Amino acid sequence: MPSFRTIGVIGGMGPAATADFLGLLVAGVAAARDTDHPRVLIDSNPHVPDRNAAALHGAASPGPALAAMAHGLVAQGAEVLAMPCNAAHGWADAITAAPFISMIDAAVAEAMAYCPQAIGVLGVGATLALDLYGRASPVPVLAGDLAVVQPAVNAIKAGDTGAAVRLALAGEAARLRDAGAEVIIAACTEVPLVLRAGDVPLPLINSTAALARATLAAARLPDRVAP
Amino acid sequence: MPSFRTIGVIGGMGPAATADFLGLLVAGVAAARDTDHPRVLIDSNPHVPDRNAAALHGAASPGPALAAMAHGLVAQGAEVLAMPCNAAHGWADAITAAPFISMIDAAVAEAMAYCPQAIGVLGVGATLALDLYGRASPVPVLAGDLAVVQPAVNAIKAGDTGAAVRLALAGEAARLRDAGAEVIIAACTEVPLVLRAGDVPLPLINSTAALARATLAAARLPDRVAP
Repeated sequence: MPSFRTIGVIGGMGPAATADFLGLLVAGVAAARDTDHPRVLIDSNPHVPDRNAAALHGAASPGPALAAMAHGLVAQGAEVLAMPCNAAHGWADAITAAPFISMIDAAVAEAMAYCPQAIGVLGVGATLALDLYGRASPVPVLAGDLAVVQPAVNAIKAGDTGAAVRLALAGEAARLRDAGAEVIIAACTEVPLVLRAGDVPLPLINSTAALARATLAAARLPDRVAP
Repeated sequence: MPSFRTIGVIGGMGPAATADFLGLLVAGVAAARDTDHPRVLIDSNPHVPDRNAAALHGAASPGPALAAMAHGLVAQGAEVLAMPCNAAHGWADAITAAPFISMIDAAVAEAMAYCPQAIGVLGVGATLALDLYGRASPVPVLAGDLAVVQPAVNAIKAGDTGAAVRLALAGEAARLRDAGAEVIIAACTEVPLVLRAGDVPLPLINSTAALARATLAAARLPDRVAP
């Protein structure tokens, strides 16, 4: 008897973040056997039109591609959808094929558990340009400096997860603390591939892990009670 | 312009092995940008009928479920199929929807690069009962003791990746060396989640990594030459 609804993952933005998300979904289940896990359908598609180019330069919208991926996953059996890419949530309205678990809302909910006066956000491109966190947060959001965060994210996407990249992101988190942030959200799926809790002088919310927890919670079926 | 055909993954056997395989596919591409990666479609389905029960006790065949997963992936666009589960290869003949990259053949090919007189195999259940490696190998195959390997694999599936499990598997590899094996194949996708090259006194072939390399090689499209 499955314990979960089938999870569909709109992925590939980027591919490493999707692999990270799948690992977190697996690790997040207290499983004694394979069959305790949810079925997970993934479309890891790195050819979705660029989210940042669409938000910043008016390039082709990724919305139709995301909608098509959602429909494909639901046709295969997905009952709950998640998308481990913050920036792509600018086009989340295009995803209507099944209930959609918002990564932005999941990360903000975890941040608000610390009752912060302000939240610091390490994100890039469309996440900032469309103010995705500012629109979802009940408290002010302070954005990390793109001149620091964007090169770090580009380096991680190219496979560089070294100390220089980690230190750059940690320094930006410290600057946001000095500006008043009381929690930091790693609001780009590449960031937590490098930046860990011990690197930051504040609580650090991993948006990928927050989405994994929220997705498993939404997919879990109620326990059956013996008659 | 995509550099790869779309890869379909028949997964979930077990879920952690599929997450490991996706991570290896991503890490195996020398990518500067997201768009350099292949599109990867995954059906991580932990509810496929038990491979070991089918091989050992005549329980329901997993073949029809594997065939249906393959068709679903191809319907979504998969052009090359891979299945990161050694035991399930006992039913690989059921997978006909697209070209199938055999994990067994990929691991044996990597082992044979060492020109061994015999190969040691750390596997379980159907992998051993159906002699999948013996049938694929041009040299004799020595199987690890199930009384050691099966409890280790069960522990890993339940989330135990500790030192005791690693030592048990390393001890069995050493025993196979004493019996004449010159290469060891980690022939169950759970084994390389714990056992690393330095733990074994012989070359260690990770069947999951061998499949990732073979799958990327099979999916890669020829470079276009400028006219």
